[in-house]
Amino acid sequence: MARKILRINMTDLTAKYEDIPEKWAMWAGRGLTSSIIYDEVDPTCHPLGPNNKLVIAPGWVSGTPAAPSSGRTSFGGKSPLTGTIKEANSGGLSSQKIARLGIAAIILEGQPKDGKWYYIHIDKDGVTFHDASDLLGKGMEEVDRIMWERHPNKPAVIGIGPVGERLASNAGISVNDPENNPGRYAGRGGLGAVMGARHVKAIVVDDKGGPGVEIKNMDLFKQGRKKLTNAILSHDITKKGGGLNAYGTDVLMNIINEAGGLPTRNFSSGQFEGAAKISGEMIAEMVEKRKAGMTGHACHPGCVIQCSNIYPGPDGKIIASPIEYETAFALGANCGIDDLDFVAKMTKECNDLGLDTIEMGNTIAIAMEAGLLEFGDKEKALALFDEIRNDTPLGRILSNGVEATAKVFGVHRVPTVKGQSMPAYEPRAIKGIGFTYATSTMGADHTSGYTIAPEILGTGQKVDPLTYEGKAELSLAFQATTAFIDSTGYCLFIAFPILDIQEGFEGMVETVAGVMGWDLSGDDVVEIGKEILKKERLFNEKAGFTNADDRIPEFMRYEPLPPHNVVWDVPDEELDKVYAWVHES
Amino acid sequence: MARKILRINMTDLTAKYEDIPEKWAMWAGRGLTSSIIYDEVDPTCHPLGPNNKLVIAPGWVSGTPAAPSSGRTSFGGKSPLTGTIKEANSGGLSSQKIARLGIAAIILEGQPKDGKWYYIHIDKDGVTFHDASDLLGKGMEEVDRIMWERHPNKPAVIGIGPVGERLASNAGISVNDPENNPGRYAGRGGLGAVMGARHVKAIVVDDKGGPGVEIKNMDLFKQGRKKLTNAILSHDITKKGGGLNAYGTDVLMNIINEAGGLPTRNFSSGQFEGAAKISGEMIAEMVEKRKAGMTGHACHPGCVIQCSNIYPGPDGKIIASPIEYETAFALGANCGIDDLDFVAKMTKECNDLGLDTIEMGNTIAIAMEAGLLEFGDKEKALALFDEIRNDTPLGRILSNGVEATAKVFGVHRVPTVKGQSMPAYEPRAIKGIGFTYATSTMGADHTSGYTIAPEILGTGQKVDPLTYEGKAELSLAFQATTAFIDSTGYCLFIAFPILDIQEGFEGMVETVAGVMGWDLSGDDVVEIGKEILKKERLFNEKAGFTNADDRIPEFMRYEPLPPHNVVWDVPDEELDKVYAWVHES
Repeated sequence: MARKILRINMTDLTAKYEDIPEKWAMWAGRGLTSSIIYDEVDPTCHPLGPNNKLVIAPGWVSGTPAAPSSGRTSFGGKSPLTGTIKEANSGGLSSQKIARLGIAAIILEGQPKDGKWYYIHIDKDGVTFHDASDLLGKGMEEVDRIMWERHPNKPAVIGIGPVGERLASNAGISVNDPENNPGRYAGRGGLGAVMGARHVKAIVVDDKGGPGVEIKNMDLFKQGRKKLTNAILSHDITKKGGGLNAYGTDVLMNIINEAGGLPTRNFSSGQFEGAAKISGEMIAEMVEKRKAGMTGHACHPGCVIQCSNIYPGPDGKIIASPIEYETAFALGANCGIDDLDFVAKMTKECNDLGLDTIEMGNTIAIAMEAGLLEFGDKEKALALFDEIRNDTPLGRILSNGVEATAKVFGVHRVPTVKGQSMPAYEPRAIKGIGFTYATSTMGADHTSGYTIAPEILGTGQKVDPLTYEGKAELSLAFQATTAFIDSTGYCLFIAFPILDIQEGFEGMVETVAGVMGWDLSGDDVVEIGKEILKKERLFNEKAGFTNADDRIPEFMRYEPLPPHNVVWDVPDEELDKVYAWVHES
Repeated sequence: MARKILRINMTDLTAKYEDIPEKWAMWAGRGLTSSIIYDEVDPTCHPLGPNNKLVIAPGWVSGTPAAPSSGRTSFGGKSPLTGTIKEANSGGLSSQKIARLGIAAIILEGQPKDGKWYYIHIDKDGVTFHDASDLLGKGMEEVDRIMWERHPNKPAVIGIGPVGERLASNAGISVNDPENNPGRYAGRGGLGAVMGARHVKAIVVDDKGGPGVEIKNMDLFKQGRKKLTNAILSHDITKKGGGLNAYGTDVLMNIINEAGGLPTRNFSSGQFEGAAKISGEMIAEMVEKRKAGMTGHACHPGCVIQCSNIYPGPDGKIIASPIEYETAFALGANCGIDDLDFVAKMTKECNDLGLDTIEMGNTIAIAMEAGLLEFGDKEKALALFDEIRNDTPLGRILSNGVEATAKVFGVHRVPTVKGQSMPAYEPRAIKGIGFTYATSTMGADHTSGYTIAPEILGTGQKVDPLTYEGKAELSLAFQATTAFIDSTGYCLFIAFPILDIQEGFEGMVETVAGVMGWDLSGDDVVEIGKEILKKERLFNEKAGFTNADDRIPEFMRYEPLPPHNVVWDVPDEELDKVYAWVHES
């Protein structure tokens, strides 16, 4: 059965399956969300107005039998945080279930005329709209629980917390994990507010009895699957008991701190004296010591990397799942907080309220810089979430992220690009990731071109993080490859094995070619990625973005960062190289 | 004596007089502030960071003997509200006093290393820095009073209220009037925060014994002065007892309402049923009835138009000065408030706290749209100023203007261009002013190209407000001429007589030519204006602005405005005509 587009119109509460038009037929995941947004959304529309759309798309291999670690769902729209096109993707249950219903993408558009709120249930028999008035104001933990109570077959639940209802710019979209925890997030860029503007509190997806995913060349698919799985399971970073599996992404804490690139206290230092106390090693130690929680947790069925975790409190009760490196950086180091239990408590709040942890942690750091609380004051930091839960004006400010908070409190040290705050790598100390932050079509985003792999981890090759020569090309190569991977449904962490192991790379390509019935070579990967980037870039240009927006914040140009005491010294022309090809070809 | 640049560096607390460099020698007022900002401020700097500057410049004819209505001071910087270059000008005492000290411009730069706050005193003997710690948190009424107590000769006081200290994006710069009221404002664009970022609470200017302004061709100057004065005093709008003199700028309330172009209840209607109750006629009636206050008030010595007023309460005590049309629109019609006493009370709060009334009124309207209070709820609207005075989080939000408030509360009907909210003319019903809002180098601003004159008032010519044909050319002509007038030191209201009376126009040109010793023709006015606009436009381009930023907000494109039931239907290409010449010549 050919994949279909499911168009859900909230203005008249209709849902219809449409044949996928030729222009979108090759696309999936990010390639599809960005194509649809590019074709159907006016780049100059208000992100919270009636004319924005939310597009949800599984990847090419999502929902296929046992493609390893392929449970990513792409969410796309015009971002309320950045004003750019946005794709944010998440693990959890949704990708495979949507794909197995034969759906290439869900397009959510319109706004209810009556102003009421709904949740939407999708299964093989169709789409139903349900009154969500009793869910309003509820956190995602409760929403997920209620949805599983009301609907059978342990469905995927895509939902927004209270901050999404309030159309806050840091509202993420939650996806439940196999334990029905709301901890998997398409967090960045405020797409939860785009869903909220549609007055949709949740989308419940039950794939039971669905047609499944058509695989056009099963032999090629199986061959690729084997190669890729072998590569993942043999690479030091992704294998069983390897860095990610044993310690989670927070294995990076000590590594990046050692490299002097860990943003600390609102990006005023590249090292945090408390790093070890909030590291992945410490998470594993707490799981061991408290005999509760776990490391090596899978965020979706079929993941062979299993880098997630469940973090326990001193009493053995679960606090939150997961604590990622990005979370521990943002809510920890960048706030001067070295207590993992508090990081976990704040993570739980983020996951329940519907906030992206990176943006939220960085926002608390801005509040600290503004003098609302001291750096390191973990009790007061945690109490800020009460402001959000109680919907106070301060809560509203904080829910809108770093730039809004800096604006309101007059802070000028604002570590953002295109309105989105920087993740856990200091661009002054790791120049290549600065190229990605500056030029990404998404605002400051590590996952859009993870040059940390060669700059710090030595994956693929080893390059000097402190120099900028060749970084334009490096960042572009990563951004293009990433745009492709974000379209596969695979987790981005397959990048480590496929960078180092040629057979792994071939395996990724062959699984995609097998599903789609393509004759696909490795060279096509970058070209297809660049096609996606070009659409995104052109959307942004129409929305008013120029090279002048592809810049690292001013304060990083004049404020030296310890311990290397380096500034952002990259000439603008170097940054402008990254996307020069868009108008050359 | 040749004019000098006074450069005040707050980092090392130094002040030095510099010879005016050749590149700036011809400029004054807006032409000079924009030239200095263009030459000395990095367009990509953070407006609140250490590298922005505040430039203060009187006009060409400011401080000359009896040039009529020539007391405007230009303030320039990179705007915290818009991110563009910004010039805001004000009446009051400062222009003439600065000019008579032989100062072409004050450049205020740097930030005190010790974090302390200062006020600066300037007189013929030099510049002194004074501890301002006892002034912090004080409103402008008290600051003005204290400055006059401490310093003789009734000096000009340029100052910021508490919101400027907090670096809020809607912080204006106050200039005292002849009665030492703080009601004259360089209000728009948040330049008060740029002054605040320098840690300067006030600048006191005493011109006693100053050298005065050199006039190179006195005969020509006198000839021009006579022509211009005669024109002003014979034109219906500006003559004694004419519209502006009898009723103030708020004479426009009934006129614009009648035309269906009065923005009402957050730009949802072009007519307000309570317009007459907040009109200039009603101000005059209250002054008459309450036997207190006055109309026909002069905001600076030597004004022959005298359009300001002093508004009395029911008990005969003064509430505020002045109530302008823009103020009555923003705090009145646009909030659905039809009570002039409340408009006056809110105006007093704005003037004391240091807020631009246009942006503040529009911000309250956003809060109403967000549901914090009902449209028309005057008591609650007035109480919002307590939030600002008490420095609550809500107060901080509101002090940052329309876009910040809309962002925090998730409102998408946001009547702004480039971050600045629209003044008192609905672009859907008066298309030409929409061209000015959209394309102005300053964000939405009526004073930067006041096409209302021909579109509504029939000054110069009469054109249809509801059509867009020819409006690109019309707006450009007004924007260019205005850039020139903003450089003269003359009040923009001389535009009415000089549009209709050829001798008046000649008089303006001759006074400028007389002061500068130029051979200046009428044709030069537009060319000189375009030189200024070009610098501003290029600054904005370097800051990242493109044609895509020259747009009217999306909601006005799909939401018909009563009573004409018109949308903003102007093709983008028409808007792009206005500044096409910048890169053609």
